[in-house]
Amino acid sequence: MKRSERIVAITNYFLEHPFELISLPYFSETYVAAKSSISEDLDIIDHMFQQEGIGKLQTVAGAAGGVQYLPFYSKENSDVFINQLCEKLNDPERILPGGYLYMSDLLGDPETIRNIGKIFATAFADKGIEYIVTVATKGIPLAYATANILNVPVVIVRRDPKVTEGSTVSINYVSGSSKKIQTMVLAKRSLPEGSTVCIIDDFMKAGGTINGMKSLLKEFQAHVAGIGVLAEAEDEDEERMIDEYVSLIKIHEVNLSERKIDAKKGNYFQ
Amino acid sequence: MKRSERIVAITNYFLEHPFELISLPYFSETYVAAKSSISEDLDIIDHMFQQEGIGKLQTVAGAAGGVQYLPFYSKENSDVFINQLCEKLNDPERILPGGYLYMSDLLGDPETIRNIGKIFATAFADKGIEYIVTVATKGIPLAYATANILNVPVVIVRRDPKVTEGSTVSINYVSGSSKKIQTMVLAKRSLPEGSTVCIIDDFMKAGGTINGMKSLLKEFQAHVAGIGVLAEAEDEDEERMIDEYVSLIKIHEVNLSERKIDAKKGNYFQ
Repeated sequence: MKRSERIVAITNYFLEHPFELISLPYFSETYVAAKSSISEDLDIIDHMFQQEGIGKLQTVAGAAGGVQYLPFYSKENSDVFINQLCEKLNDPERILPGGYLYMSDLLGDPETIRNIGKIFATAFADKGIEYIVTVATKGIPLAYATANILNVPVVIVRRDPKVTEGSTVSINYVSGSSKKIQTMVLAKRSLPEGSTVCIIDDFMKAGGTINGMKSLLKEFQAHVAGIGVLAEAEDEDEERMIDEYVSLIKIHEVNLSERKIDAKKGNYFQ
Repeated sequence: MKRSERIVAITNYFLEHPFELISLPYFSETYVAAKSSISEDLDIIDHMFQQEGIGKLQTVAGAAGGVQYLPFYSKENSDVFINQLCEKLNDPERILPGGYLYMSDLLGDPETIRNIGKIFATAFADKGIEYIVTVATKGIPLAYATANILNVPVVIVRRDPKVTEGSTVSINYVSGSSKKIQTMVLAKRSLPEGSTVCIIDDFMKAGGTINGMKSLLKEFQAHVAGIGVLAEAEDEDEERMIDEYVSLIKIHEVNLSERKIDAKKGNYFQ
């Protein structure tokens, strides 16, 4: 097999297996090439991944060593992407009765979701995340997009127990903005005790839902190593119940009478 | 830029932009190379994509032409993958009270989900799908995985209207297995009238939910060009409400007293 052919196959393999440590013999056996040739291939791929701003290859020395693809979404790429997203959000046609924003079309676009996942994965890449946790429904695609890059499973907290989940742990919590008592459940066998997790959600207002998730995760002795929300609503009258989190977008204002939205980049860019 | 370097970048570009028609000048400008060199690159990539069983490049001639990556998950790869999945499903530990099967761990694994998406995308690649439609909650990751490959948006039908969706169209339907009346809603602005759609869901018993979705989609004058379910339950006592669909897994039996599950490959493999 020629170098250029091998490079197509190896590039695809890395992109499909992020964060996985792969031994050099695996590649040299699969593509019948000398280790020195494979090493040169890897140098080329590493160089191009960095140049394209999509990550790098990292070599781990030793008998149990190998090489792994560490995906990365550069700050410049993230900046451009989130600015475009804010521009779309600032379209007054999105304003719904009650001052809510219509975002389902953006959350339905696979490329948008993939990019958001890449940014979250970059933000939490060094936290040793073992599981991504989200709450049904809108956070789910974002959670999977992040999990795809970090190469870890997704666990979904629900509002209502389902018969197909087996025994569950449930918690009641007070929603931050509506002050209503709400319930959340998580299937017992879905998360091993003591896991390191990252919470991903689409929207945060006062932070009641995320706070509820944190309480529920405490029942699983989980360590919450990261919290990422796509958009946060900035409301000066209300106290935030969560302090450490990453937001990609800040919605400062939805003005119903003037039909004006003010969405800006979130705290990830500060 | 050397050929091998260019090939890393172009391979990544295609994998990120399936089904997108890209003009040759785009590549020759981006990577500063003669069109003839780019053509040779594309031949190499096409050859390797086919050899790896992940798809092919298709050239469209003419002024508005270009080249597009048509992803494909080979029958052999699909066969191996679904057999492994069936083996996992046949673990008696999965049996829940009431004869339900615990599947959340499998549906939480990003690689499993990606592979399922690839199979559905292959099954429906030539149907001109414009939207993937699913119903909350468990179908969502499968819908996005399919949409990622087909490069089309996802539309989510809900059980309950949400204030963040604007005006909705709702429908009442009779669930096939429990014979209960249930409701489904879809935001009006989420799906343009007359779209060609594919329904994706995780599980089908009698088919009541999918039938409900079909009725709801009729309100949007949508053309349902494909229906894909991960698993169908085979129950000879019950009549199926849906006839044309693709299933990847057939669950013949969940025997509570003998603690035995019989999951086999679905109709996609027949």
